[in-house]
Amino acid sequence: MSTPPLSRRDLEFLLYEWIDVEALTSRPRFAEHSRETFDAVLELSSGIAAKYFASHNKTSDSNEPIVGPDGKVVTIPEIKEALDVFAGAGLFAGSFDESLGGMQLPTSVMRASMAWFQAANAGTVGYPFLTVANGNLLVAHGSDAQIDSYVRPMLEGRFFGTMCLSEPQAGSSLADITTKAVDQQDGTYRVTGTKMWISGGDHELSENIVHLVLAKIPGGQVGVKGLSLFIVPKFVLGADGIPGERNDVALVGLNHKMGNRGTTNTLLNFGDGTYQPGGRAGAIGYLVGEPHRGLSYMFHMMNEARIGVGFLATALGYAGYRQAVEYATTRTQGRALSDKNPASKPVPIIEHADVKRMLLAQKSYVEGALALGLYCSHLVDEQDTAENTEQRRRKTLLLDVLTPIAKSWPAQWCLRANDLAIQVHGGYGYTREYDVEQFYRDNRLNQIHEGTHGIQGLDLLGRKMAMEDGAGLALLIATMRSTIDRARQTGGESCTLAEQLDESVERVRVVTNTLLAARERTDALANASIYLEAVGHVVLAWIWLEQFLASDQKQGDFYDGKRQAARYFFRYELPATEPQFDLLAAQDRTTIDMAPNWF
Amino acid sequence: MSTPPLSRRDLEFLLYEWIDVEALTSRPRFAEHSRETFDAVLELSSGIAAKYFASHNKTSDSNEPIVGPDGKVVTIPEIKEALDVFAGAGLFAGSFDESLGGMQLPTSVMRASMAWFQAANAGTVGYPFLTVANGNLLVAHGSDAQIDSYVRPMLEGRFFGTMCLSEPQAGSSLADITTKAVDQQDGTYRVTGTKMWISGGDHELSENIVHLVLAKIPGGQVGVKGLSLFIVPKFVLGADGIPGERNDVALVGLNHKMGNRGTTNTLLNFGDGTYQPGGRAGAIGYLVGEPHRGLSYMFHMMNEARIGVGFLATALGYAGYRQAVEYATTRTQGRALSDKNPASKPVPIIEHADVKRMLLAQKSYVEGALALGLYCSHLVDEQDTAENTEQRRRKTLLLDVLTPIAKSWPAQWCLRANDLAIQVHGGYGYTREYDVEQFYRDNRLNQIHEGTHGIQGLDLLGRKMAMEDGAGLALLIATMRSTIDRARQTGGESCTLAEQLDESVERVRVVTNTLLAARERTDALANASIYLEAVGHVVLAWIWLEQFLASDQKQGDFYDGKRQAARYFFRYELPATEPQFDLLAAQDRTTIDMAPNWF
Repeated sequence: MSTPPLSRRDLEFLLYEWIDVEALTSRPRFAEHSRETFDAVLELSSGIAAKYFASHNKTSDSNEPIVGPDGKVVTIPEIKEALDVFAGAGLFAGSFDESLGGMQLPTSVMRASMAWFQAANAGTVGYPFLTVANGNLLVAHGSDAQIDSYVRPMLEGRFFGTMCLSEPQAGSSLADITTKAVDQQDGTYRVTGTKMWISGGDHELSENIVHLVLAKIPGGQVGVKGLSLFIVPKFVLGADGIPGERNDVALVGLNHKMGNRGTTNTLLNFGDGTYQPGGRAGAIGYLVGEPHRGLSYMFHMMNEARIGVGFLATALGYAGYRQAVEYATTRTQGRALSDKNPASKPVPIIEHADVKRMLLAQKSYVEGALALGLYCSHLVDEQDTAENTEQRRRKTLLLDVLTPIAKSWPAQWCLRANDLAIQVHGGYGYTREYDVEQFYRDNRLNQIHEGTHGIQGLDLLGRKMAMEDGAGLALLIATMRSTIDRARQTGGESCTLAEQLDESVERVRVVTNTLLAARERTDALANASIYLEAVGHVVLAWIWLEQFLASDQKQGDFYDGKRQAARYFFRYELPATEPQFDLLAAQDRTTIDMAPNWF
Repeated sequence: MSTPPLSRRDLEFLLYEWIDVEALTSRPRFAEHSRETFDAVLELSSGIAAKYFASHNKTSDSNEPIVGPDGKVVTIPEIKEALDVFAGAGLFAGSFDESLGGMQLPTSVMRASMAWFQAANAGTVGYPFLTVANGNLLVAHGSDAQIDSYVRPMLEGRFFGTMCLSEPQAGSSLADITTKAVDQQDGTYRVTGTKMWISGGDHELSENIVHLVLAKIPGGQVGVKGLSLFIVPKFVLGADGIPGERNDVALVGLNHKMGNRGTTNTLLNFGDGTYQPGGRAGAIGYLVGEPHRGLSYMFHMMNEARIGVGFLATALGYAGYRQAVEYATTRTQGRALSDKNPASKPVPIIEHADVKRMLLAQKSYVEGALALGLYCSHLVDEQDTAENTEQRRRKTLLLDVLTPIAKSWPAQWCLRANDLAIQVHGGYGYTREYDVEQFYRDNRLNQIHEGTHGIQGLDLLGRKMAMEDGAGLALLIATMRSTIDRARQTGGESCTLAEQLDESVERVRVVTNTLLAARERTDALANASIYLEAVGHVVLAWIWLEQFLASDQKQGDFYDGKRQAARYFFRYELPATEPQFDLLAAQDRTTIDMAPNWF
């Protein structure tokens, strides 16, 4: 399919007409940049994505990685070729410091750049996605030597990164991690244990793989407070920084997934003796930062990855939406309900109200999710470069609150968009001759990895809303209210939408406070997933009101479409939160009261 | 996975404690039967399904049918073996007359029997599914000679059947069918045209394939009123009834689907000259019934197939639910929120409120859908055997109204159950090492075939609710109100649920009347899909109230579970219809007003 998977026009609207990314160029960090350099990166990205990534998306899906007879992972050659082009364009280093060879681009621009690749090929983009997040963690928490040894080669695309949290017996439960790291008193540790679901955990695509591994140093506290973070490279670096002997990190097996097949997903053994450089027991690991602070460092990467997963879900939803619009515009079938003449010419199905409903829903999900993602990315730029500490602190706080929503909302609703894209295509959409069924399969992963939907709900209600005595909640409410005020001043239809949103925001405030004040934490959190979904919809309504305001008084199909999608969201989607808030306010115990043996 | 995909206990509850299928044995048609014969069929079915169908479900999925070098379709041998066992057990003929070699079992029992096979292997069951529906159509509308020639071999499992409606240029739009049938004045027709999405359209699994083809006899009316129905066998029968020379029905290609891969799905050319027995132009076809009445005959098969698709969706949802319960019971991870000791033992995840929520949702969807399906099947038994014409007529009317819901509701919500089953399994659920991802892929088809979701919405609101001056609506309302009255008399919690349902039923009544009285039919039908979903949820709430009442005063985990699932549905699901009815009552025009070029 040659339909561009994202809309350049929409990206420009969001980046320049709404967020005003150009204003960032007044900050010292971005002073070398201009709209021209931003546009050049986006143009470069969409071009490479189409030529090298989209072109092997189907091939990747039907030729998933296998383990060859020599124990090495075999991937189709197009993946390596695409990643080499990606590296050659300097895109691994896009947002990094110039001192590290980076382009020092704003995160918001780089997220938009990456979205082109995510929309083109969810599998292949997995490698740079993890590598960049890994690099960002090490820049923030690693030593200078670690940055030189590992980050620089990652930014050149020579080393790839992973994040190793989950273990077979402890998926989401990081407190139960048993991987062990023993101090050798020579600056190194010996790591032993098994890690599950490690994306990019093994392959031959890069010279080395930099595993970031959560493990316990014996003697530390039980639970997550005893976790430390280690660099465990696939190949141990020689004194010259060149990957040398094989470290004891063994591929136990590849997981065979429903979708997202281009990214290897692995079960890894650390220190099981398969490879024993120098006869040592355990894989060689290097502590990052201080002992027992591993989880907080890993959250640096996880939070970034969560926003990134939201973008991945968004990009897949967007790609499906664009194809559904294209299909509905060209496919003729049936006629208007008012047309009683069976001999009249069939119309393009985009004329049917139900097809328009399915397309409007997709538009509201994918453009809403993209806007939210870019908003959050801009918060990253602000927390990095805003003028004073207080401003930066507020941006960090708002980003913290929005992160579980920016991850889970697109994962849920852009998957729904893919579902609707299949439906618009009818029987064709269910076949592998078209792309939308793959998007649907690829996208299903996003409610699972980087913290499941349920984990995000607990994070939002149990941590983010509660933190700093409710400061996060207060800031989110104030931010949404400020848009409401602006809409009221604008008047007209904006005002009507603002009043509706104001009622929903008030429900968020009251219900959250009720739940936070609940006597029993178990009761309060029982429906945290529903809370996540309800608050998510309110946040997206706010994002749509923002887009409505950014389109105000502007003429043309594009702005008409934005306004209509906003109306759709307020009329068809936002009201669905009412019964959710009712349920939450009642602190319903139906699930708690369900005995396991009643199933 | 060895978890039984359905619950025998639940089936017994629904068939014997709720519907009272045993009472049917007082009817002459079923006089030879008893609970023992019913149970024997179910036992036989679950056994064969487990041994011969479930056993190759994954193999089928990863080895989809291909076209061999000789142009013949190659399927894995396990499919043929399973269908031979199915035929040998007499299951093709289960509900048919004894005079045709059938067992004359009630449809409700046979649907339950078939559900075991559907839950075990959605692909392989496709062949008998279509064959039985084809046979039923011919018994109702074919000549005695046609029944002898085609139905008898189908009931023996020697011939398989198809239904050929769609064409590449006219998926859902049957008015645009262009396949042509020309009268040869010798009792036969010559059929030419192309049919798309034909399940079981070609294979080597049976001695013959009996295509039922909608086509136009030149000179007839334009549109659906010009459609006639033809038997077009793959092999023309000789005078001895034995399949002889190849008819001119050519396989153009197989469709490659996301799921449901075991059933071949084909593009067929009729009369393109590939095979020309006797040098005739066109495939030989035999008119069924009278000319130009083809669509009404085909509706016989389509309505049956729609209920059957509902069962297929239900069975897949049910199978996933059972596996999710099994997984959640055995998988330990995390601990209670109230447990602050990270050294305590992890608990089975079924203890977590969010997991219980996901399991309760699945339970409410799959058990609700199964109950609705069996209720509708019982209506078939009633319309066939009730004591007087008026009673039969009322059962037919209620069945007509419920059919779009019995098809679309399970297709939507049992797919959602599969989605939740994946989520309960976490990362494992996304892998092909487990079964649930296949159920999810297989189930996605069910919103598309046998009339898309959108078509069902138009059927429900535009035809079924409107027919006979609203008699269908009135009967549905009266039926639900009679349960409400019974619940009120029962008192206690039943009464509370009844009051809630009563409000929803009243909304159905008022909103439907508003829409039927609307000046503009286009406006009224614009949100027919949402109408379908809202009314569907009310109907399912009624089905759950029925199950609640059937569990009243009964002790034990099973009944506790039924009651809690009913509570779940009333508290978490039914309230979601309120904003939907609000939207419908407002006759929202957002979708209509959306211009195609605004996308």
